[in-house]
Amino acid sequence: MIFTINRDLLLQNLTSVSKALSTKAQMPVLTGIKIDVVDNKILLTASNSEISIQACIDDKKHVKIEEEGTFIAPGKYLIELVKKTEAKEIYFESFEDNAIKILADKSNFTLNVLSKDDYPIISFADSPTFLTLDAINLKQLIRKTTFAVSLSESRVILTGVSVTSQGNLLEVVSTDSYRLAKKQLKFNVDYPEIKVVIPGKSLDELNKIVDEGETLVEIHISHTKALFKYKNLLYQTRLIDGTFPNTNSLIPTEFLTSIKFNKNELISAIERAAVFTNMDSSNIIKLTLNSDKTVEIASTTNEIGAAQEELNPIECSNVVPFQIAFSSKYFLEAIKSFDSTEVTVHFTGEVRPFIITGEYDRNLIQLILPVRVS
Amino acid sequence: MIFTINRDLLLQNLTSVSKALSTKAQMPVLTGIKIDVVDNKILLTASNSEISIQACIDDKKHVKIEEEGTFIAPGKYLIELVKKTEAKEIYFESFEDNAIKILADKSNFTLNVLSKDDYPIISFADSPTFLTLDAINLKQLIRKTTFAVSLSESRVILTGVSVTSQGNLLEVVSTDSYRLAKKQLKFNVDYPEIKVVIPGKSLDELNKIVDEGETLVEIHISHTKALFKYKNLLYQTRLIDGTFPNTNSLIPTEFLTSIKFNKNELISAIERAAVFTNMDSSNIIKLTLNSDKTVEIASTTNEIGAAQEELNPIECSNVVPFQIAFSSKYFLEAIKSFDSTEVTVHFTGEVRPFIITGEYDRNLIQLILPVRVS
Repeated sequence: MIFTINRDLLLQNLTSVSKALSTKAQMPVLTGIKIDVVDNKILLTASNSEISIQACIDDKKHVKIEEEGTFIAPGKYLIELVKKTEAKEIYFESFEDNAIKILADKSNFTLNVLSKDDYPIISFADSPTFLTLDAINLKQLIRKTTFAVSLSESRVILTGVSVTSQGNLLEVVSTDSYRLAKKQLKFNVDYPEIKVVIPGKSLDELNKIVDEGETLVEIHISHTKALFKYKNLLYQTRLIDGTFPNTNSLIPTEFLTSIKFNKNELISAIERAAVFTNMDSSNIIKLTLNSDKTVEIASTTNEIGAAQEELNPIECSNVVPFQIAFSSKYFLEAIKSFDSTEVTVHFTGEVRPFIITGEYDRNLIQLILPVRVS
Repeated sequence: MIFTINRDLLLQNLTSVSKALSTKAQMPVLTGIKIDVVDNKILLTASNSEISIQACIDDKKHVKIEEEGTFIAPGKYLIELVKKTEAKEIYFESFEDNAIKILADKSNFTLNVLSKDDYPIISFADSPTFLTLDAINLKQLIRKTTFAVSLSESRVILTGVSVTSQGNLLEVVSTDSYRLAKKQLKFNVDYPEIKVVIPGKSLDELNKIVDEGETLVEIHISHTKALFKYKNLLYQTRLIDGTFPNTNSLIPTEFLTSIKFNKNELISAIERAAVFTNMDSSNIIKLTLNSDKTVEIASTTNEIGAAQEELNPIECSNVVPFQIAFSSKYFLEAIKSFDSTEVTVHFTGEVRPFIITGEYDRNLIQLILPVRVS
């Protein structure tokens, strides 16, 4: 195997596939990046138990292949090495049985490789069922929902994001059973029917690879896997087996009162009110709607102190004095998922779930369960 | 106690004194910042077992004192709170026996305070013996020497930096017994004679507080403490007891050969040559001077691979083929302490200490002990 490749092009693709590199030592070969030089192109592949990524480089201007071959290079060393070199081009050549020679300007590296025979066979197979989204919509779906997945393995299904499509509606839902995020997209055409649960972490990693923009992403769904095709990359994640709870009935539709806030004012006030709780695991704040239409946000932390904020909401649909307590962390994460400059919090009652909406965030609902405090 | 203070002024001074806040729970009161409102000024004090810092705020335009008093506020909560508020002014008032009220715009905090009676008495006493340095020189002395102190407590004296002055010469030396950094400053006037060892960590913290510039810093030396007076701040550190080893005889003055390199080229080459060793605890590289005046830098790491770099030095005083091995980490830290664009490495022999100098870094010597390799 002999080839020469542009340094920047190689680094960019190595960085993309490295998101799937295993850091665990269970299967040492998965700490490696598989490099296939075949048919006038170079394939870079990395995989761990959750995701697999493959980059296909067939840029004839920046790649010169002299001899085909395959090797598995230790991922982190290969990337470090390419990062540190300032050469424009890098030359690779197989060296003896278990090493590669890498030449870059006046640098000369010999890198031991991992055994090809141990590398699992990974199929990135298309599926007859696929849908297409532009990158910007895909990133929004991820950013607005994955933060609400469960981090606990006690109900594995909740560590995933439910993705369903029916007719022209794509719906993405996540919940850790204390809060819920739900985002819908409507299309002009009907989509194939799908109903899968994708690990939240896999979507977060995908989000790091996909750039803001209008590039189309194909999403191929099979029985156990979802494959995302983006530019020259194939990004594949396993699905979570099981049935996602039906959450539609949880979302209230009638409200006691709806209060509209300036989003940034609300965020600052909550952050200040939670200043003594944040560093603590409990981070409960109390919100009070007063009869003069002002809103008070307050918290008390034993031994440290108390904080109280007063806010003038933009609008309040119904001035009914009441009080509700909830996690400031959940509330902040929910509000920050909105792009609107104003958000509306719709309350149902003092111990009932409430929802948050934003005028310019169509089809996005964040729901939070309150806590009972004395 | 009642006072109002400009938010930015308070935050800046809190941040400075916070460098001395204790994070250990041995003496809980030292996690607090002592605030004395007295004589038309506000003193902020923080202290741990190593260093104490006091800021004096007597800016009448930005501080309004209505009632004197003293309290100890939990440091991290007070700073968080001031950081998070966007108010221009913050109002403080004692509240009951063990709390303060803090008002800022529409925020209203109650912060429990720590017991005044537990706070140790800290004296920031001047000394008849003091010397004066401008901030820029002080920062250089610190930056070019403290990295070489020992991190091991087995010889406590080596965790400090030796500071001596005699006549018009100020000399700062640090060593962990594998390398040594020595910087001298010459003045136009004679300085009082001093001979102390200051903890390296204390100087690193001081460096964070002092800004680049020509502001003068007074250094007061007493038997057990060094006090730095900088702007409105008093920065005090304990000294290390004991005798610093005499290192003058260690520094070679006759050389086998001196090789001058472009500093940045040398740094890049070493970083690449060490790419497989860096992540490892052993980080030994070999430097070879060839008879054709080229320099080779190489490393081999078992199981990973080998790296080799070729460099053309700018000058070489004596082309004697030889080879030497040393820690790439120590070498890089030493080279990076130079401001010159060219550095010269003076070798004495294959297993003898070597030194590094830079044309524009007058009176700075970095020494490194080689290692024996097979």
